[in-house]
Amino acid sequence: MTKVLVFGHQNPDTDTITSAIVYAHLKNQIGMEAEAVRLGDINNETKFALEKFGFDSPRLIENVSTEAKKVILVDHNEKQQSAEGIEEVQITEVIDHHRIANFETADPLYYRAEPVGCTATIINKIYKEKGIEVPANIAGLMLSAIVSDTLLFKSPTCTEEDIVAARELEQIAGVNVEEYGLAMLKAGADLSDKSLEDLLTLDAKEFGMGESKVIIAQVNAVDVNDVMDRQVELEELITREIQEKELDLFFFVVTDILNNDSVALALGKLALKAEAAFNVPFVNNTALLKGVVSRKKQVVPALTEALAE
Amino acid sequence: MTKVLVFGHQNPDTDTITSAIVYAHLKNQIGMEAEAVRLGDINNETKFALEKFGFDSPRLIENVSTEAKKVILVDHNEKQQSAEGIEEVQITEVIDHHRIANFETADPLYYRAEPVGCTATIINKIYKEKGIEVPANIAGLMLSAIVSDTLLFKSPTCTEEDIVAARELEQIAGVNVEEYGLAMLKAGADLSDKSLEDLLTLDAKEFGMGESKVIIAQVNAVDVNDVMDRQVELEELITREIQEKELDLFFFVVTDILNNDSVALALGKLALKAEAAFNVPFVNNTALLKGVVSRKKQVVPALTEALAE
Repeated sequence: MTKVLVFGHQNPDTDTITSAIVYAHLKNQIGMEAEAVRLGDINNETKFALEKFGFDSPRLIENVSTEAKKVILVDHNEKQQSAEGIEEVQITEVIDHHRIANFETADPLYYRAEPVGCTATIINKIYKEKGIEVPANIAGLMLSAIVSDTLLFKSPTCTEEDIVAARELEQIAGVNVEEYGLAMLKAGADLSDKSLEDLLTLDAKEFGMGESKVIIAQVNAVDVNDVMDRQVELEELITREIQEKELDLFFFVVTDILNNDSVALALGKLALKAEAAFNVPFVNNTALLKGVVSRKKQVVPALTEALAE
Repeated sequence: MTKVLVFGHQNPDTDTITSAIVYAHLKNQIGMEAEAVRLGDINNETKFALEKFGFDSPRLIENVSTEAKKVILVDHNEKQQSAEGIEEVQITEVIDHHRIANFETADPLYYRAEPVGCTATIINKIYKEKGIEVPANIAGLMLSAIVSDTLLFKSPTCTEEDIVAARELEQIAGVNVEEYGLAMLKAGADLSDKSLEDLLTLDAKEFGMGESKVIIAQVNAVDVNDVMDRQVELEELITREIQEKELDLFFFVVTDILNNDSVALALGKLALKAEAAFNVPFVNNTALLKGVVSRKKQVVPALTEALAE
């Protein structure tokens, strides 16, 4: 119980998994007993990155309070995105690049957030500040996280700092980021082994927006029609989810990783708010969102504002 | 309106005022148009520090939303401690050393919190990270903040980092910290020009603890009896405040800066919870809290826990 657990959000993506591994490594280097763990299944993209750089998947935990007294959060802070039992443990540190909400502590803590594209970009900076050398395989993980979160630098969340960090890490890891990055993104966009239930939960995050409860799920695809051809079945599943979780809005985003657009499907009693949010008509519950690829920078702020009105 | 305003909490203390001035200075050095402002009257201790190092008091603002679009918070994050209108402006950055609570943004931001004794200790670190020279008078302000928040290194909130920073800043500022520090604390503990209303509001902070609304006010004194001799009148004023603000608890802490103990006065319908919080009987609504000098590290966590039960 003295060990500190390091983890990212539920429905883990590549930044969440690799940042947990990398930050636990950094903590181990400075003498803290820290273990990276995960809150859900590893997706195909992350699996590709872990295999490439020779890492096992972190251990899955169910309820954090039976596992540890102290925890470090990476890549998230909102408690509904975090581990079960999070309110019974002490959060000693947070490294994140998202808005802050639904987060509260009893005691002071280390909190490091920067408005960059990827948690790994901040962790790379911390390695330097502490003068700790970045091994090649750790660099590979951080590079994978940046590629994933910025869609190979195409997302509007991508900052100059992310690009500079990726170029450094590319050298250390000994890979070509364009080649490796596209292969990794394609591995993640391969949805052939996924059920429709999987597509709705793989990268789903819940948000409190004012008084409303919203889930925004996102998948990457090489061809969005592979997913949207099954809209009728998707709507059935989403409608059930809305009832079970008493959601006001379920917003499903299918992102075209080659053209950097998304198709959105909006359901729930606040679905019409999506029209105002993106200034586009939704026909048959769907719309093409030109140039929209980022949940954090494009979808969440637009919906937050529209729902506040 | 393009200017970014930098400010600390309501009922400003020395760390809040000087950190706003110092961080605005740092931002100006890196080319940002930033102005330090304040949300309330300057106390005697802060006045002593500003005069010693040749600074004017920052401009008082009433409602931040009529003054700026973007703001930087120092030394606080909880919205009930912040400026009126805070919800209508964008918080682009926070530098703080408190717990995080009642804080929410729509967008990602810079957030730098560390569990150290004083905001100035973190800002001193940022000057170094950015390679910006600390002028002697700016060093004097940061030193004053550390002395104030750590009660000249006697508070349990004081960390090794605060002491190291103070020793560096002492050199740059060209003062003897023990001598200057005690003079500054005594200037702050001189309550002769204060009304009882002043004592209750000078350094009062409101906290949400679970469902309860709590105000914790603190004053420093050389002789606590100067204050407690007027308990009957204090209780009248506090009882009125409890009614007006619908408080569950008003906790008034008079800290003896020479012996490093405090006398507490607890009123409100949850006043009895203070006995459990500090494991001491309250007689006639008051108790001596041996070794208690820190609201943040000793009073807030103890009351938070007791009120949660």
